[in-house]
Amino acid sequence: MRRVKKLINHIISRVNVNLRPMGLDVEQALTSTIDVNKLTDDYAYYALSIDHPIYFRFRESNLGGSYFLGKCDVDRSIIVRSDIRGDELKAEGTEVEFGGVKTELYRDEIIQVVNSFLFKTLVHNHSRNPEIPEFFRIQNTVAMHYANIHGTTTEGAYLGAFSTADLSVLHNCILGNYSYVQAGDLSKVCIDPGRIWIKAEGKYEFDYNYPQATLEEYISWDQDGELIGLFADFLKGRRSDFLPVYDSLADKFPVWVPENAFVSRYAVVKGNCEIGENCLVAQRAYIENSVLGAGSNAQENSFIVDTCFAGLVVVAHGGKLVHSNIGKKVFIGFNSFLHGTEETPVSVGAGSIVMPHTIIHASEPIDIPDETIVWGYVTKQSDLETQSMSLTNFSKGKAICMDRMSFYGDGAAFIRDFQNRIEHILVENGARFDGNAESRGHAQRTQYVSYNLFQPYLAGEKQGMFPTIIVEDD
Amino acid sequence: MRRVKKLINHIISRVNVNLRPMGLDVEQALTSTIDVNKLTDDYAYYALSIDHPIYFRFRESNLGGSYFLGKCDVDRSIIVRSDIRGDELKAEGTEVEFGGVKTELYRDEIIQVVNSFLFKTLVHNHSRNPEIPEFFRIQNTVAMHYANIHGTTTEGAYLGAFSTADLSVLHNCILGNYSYVQAGDLSKVCIDPGRIWIKAEGKYEFDYNYPQATLEEYISWDQDGELIGLFADFLKGRRSDFLPVYDSLADKFPVWVPENAFVSRYAVVKGNCEIGENCLVAQRAYIENSVLGAGSNAQENSFIVDTCFAGLVVVAHGGKLVHSNIGKKVFIGFNSFLHGTEETPVSVGAGSIVMPHTIIHASEPIDIPDETIVWGYVTKQSDLETQSMSLTNFSKGKAICMDRMSFYGDGAAFIRDFQNRIEHILVENGARFDGNAESRGHAQRTQYVSYNLFQPYLAGEKQGMFPTIIVEDD
Repeated sequence: MRRVKKLINHIISRVNVNLRPMGLDVEQALTSTIDVNKLTDDYAYYALSIDHPIYFRFRESNLGGSYFLGKCDVDRSIIVRSDIRGDELKAEGTEVEFGGVKTELYRDEIIQVVNSFLFKTLVHNHSRNPEIPEFFRIQNTVAMHYANIHGTTTEGAYLGAFSTADLSVLHNCILGNYSYVQAGDLSKVCIDPGRIWIKAEGKYEFDYNYPQATLEEYISWDQDGELIGLFADFLKGRRSDFLPVYDSLADKFPVWVPENAFVSRYAVVKGNCEIGENCLVAQRAYIENSVLGAGSNAQENSFIVDTCFAGLVVVAHGGKLVHSNIGKKVFIGFNSFLHGTEETPVSVGAGSIVMPHTIIHASEPIDIPDETIVWGYVTKQSDLETQSMSLTNFSKGKAICMDRMSFYGDGAAFIRDFQNRIEHILVENGARFDGNAESRGHAQRTQYVSYNLFQPYLAGEKQGMFPTIIVEDD
Repeated sequence: MRRVKKLINHIISRVNVNLRPMGLDVEQALTSTIDVNKLTDDYAYYALSIDHPIYFRFRESNLGGSYFLGKCDVDRSIIVRSDIRGDELKAEGTEVEFGGVKTELYRDEIIQVVNSFLFKTLVHNHSRNPEIPEFFRIQNTVAMHYANIHGTTTEGAYLGAFSTADLSVLHNCILGNYSYVQAGDLSKVCIDPGRIWIKAEGKYEFDYNYPQATLEEYISWDQDGELIGLFADFLKGRRSDFLPVYDSLADKFPVWVPENAFVSRYAVVKGNCEIGENCLVAQRAYIENSVLGAGSNAQENSFIVDTCFAGLVVVAHGGKLVHSNIGKKVFIGFNSFLHGTEETPVSVGAGSIVMPHTIIHASEPIDIPDETIVWGYVTKQSDLETQSMSLTNFSKGKAICMDRMSFYGDGAAFIRDFQNRIEHILVENGARFDGNAESRGHAQRTQYVSYNLFQPYLAGEKQGMFPTIIVEDD
């Protein structure tokens, strides 16, 4: 196990070079998270698809339980039970623009993870770093439980549990637990836990801060560095349902899947479920007693329990819904938590936007009207007065301050950008497939995927390390 | 599927360059054996072990269902459900001798399979080709159902079903079904079906030829090129027992395995079985209601049903036993078939040698005394008069002609060589393990093996082809 321990120390030292000047030492976070004896427990796997360019190179790393798709180069990193999904990598020749300057990719984009530690992290790469568009880089970075790195180049970053770095570039940044940032090019910035911050330079800025005491009920660390709180409790009871899925090589589902829909064989489908046309259920999504109307999607680490989707519903990575009724074309942002019960269901009207990292934990029935934007922390209907607004009214706003939320700038542009992005996600995921090849998305393209499983050395000084593996098309 | 079809034609053309001058066109054999639609059905897998050097490179090939261990380079080949086992590859610096001339390996030995088609073939590489000891090469070769390539370099060879090329070098050779050859450096030789030929230049020569009519009951081809006969029937009923073994990633056995023994998780163990200390049960071995006494081993493609081994019994690749009682330190040669019933069991006394490719198909109880060498085709006790001899008497022989067998040369050397080889196999397989590290063999060394599974493209023009895969230690 000597080599794995050396690797852990290597990652700690590299990340600390970036972050100790910011006041953070990641040693405690890493060592309390990694159980070196369990680094041999899981297979890593990569997808071989006929619709995506493939290239994998894994060196001097542990990749236990992680999933890879696209072009990925991993060096001196520990990526445990993470999803590295490069299905939106740009091809050679693609034109990108940054501040009005256009340039072309001289080679296919590749995901590079170097000197990093990603634990149950989701990396999805619709990247926005045109400075080096050929390389989607995650370097000297620590990302804790269920963090999302979404289109964000990171160099010397620490991402807390359930945090999301979205469509940004981070240099020497710290993101607290359950924080969400989508704010362009950030350097030496520390984002407080539970801060939801969206900034488009010269256009708008949205800011919400959870009350720390409330946040800590949902997510915090105990004295041993173990993740605790309601999110951890929610996951704990359901994680074991994934075991049979990963222990079998046969891919059979207890549900009928339309030809143009896709349910990953690494998803959990339990109880009575219905999957509509053009739906996408990603690996590590969890569906139980739920109806997914046509064109809906359940992205990685989403949980959909006793819930009904009208159709074209987007559940971003890590979204969790229990006893909810979701209208048509609703967006459920990253890591949002909509938790109703049979007696206190949550309803969200058509066209609404549930902002990333929103918690709706119903103590009474909650009914959100059509075309509403909702954020923050909601437990009863009256909370919506300060935590939501109609899209129409928000679009008129120039400066909105409500409770713990502030917004400045062009409200119409903010709503429009969101709606455009939702439409982009629907298109990318194949929700708009009409039988023509051009309208194919992930749901249709990922029909022919084979999974390849690989393991580390099981004993000796290399225990827990994977050999060098290179897979390439020819 | 264009690429796979191109590959098949490529292999046919390369092998035919070697073999058409010998009067053989392999096109019919290949095309009737390969169902291109089934080339996507199976995982290939390689073992990652801490006790063997590893290096794998797979290029432009289909490897469906095959197993790899050691250092292997596969290029432009179809290797289906085969076992390529490089656990006796020589290390850099090993001294080899050929005709009195000594030389040293300048790099680790590697198995190279190029332009070849191997169908359910076992390749094990205790190789004897000191001309190029760094490369154990299988080139322009077609090996049919359950052929064994054992330490034999082949260039332009056709191996029929259940044939064995043992410790030789073959250039432009044809081996008929169920033939066995161990005869040094052979060029442009055609071995008749059912011929068992062992020749050590200047020492001895053993030759047995099955009556063709008898052989065809056990193995032949129908008009569609499909393998038929009693061997095929025997396997057909048991092949489906392997499916659950390959469909699961969990490795649990319905049998207790002593700490120093090894049962591959890709073996079938059925009914009441006992596995003794230091036993080795290889992948694709099949054990049912049988007792394996200490130090026994069941090699790849062996079947052991309702049978009892006293201990230190070696069942070479493809050996099959039903209702047999096997005494201590008995050797069951390659592809031997000992088939008793409850009423007509087969007993083999301690220290006996069952020659490769022997058929003992009991129509009455058959009892072979201790220290006997047996060969050929035996169905009743009286057949042993012409198909066996005591080791003592055989050792005295200089020229022995009995029924369809002839032996010339030094009988004592022949028996001694066999006994030395049996002892070598026992040592290599760990049967002699006494707790000291030097006495470890495959049974002890393969305790820490992880299996890595990989698949071909499932659709499109590359359907059935694997991508280029390189795995290397660092």
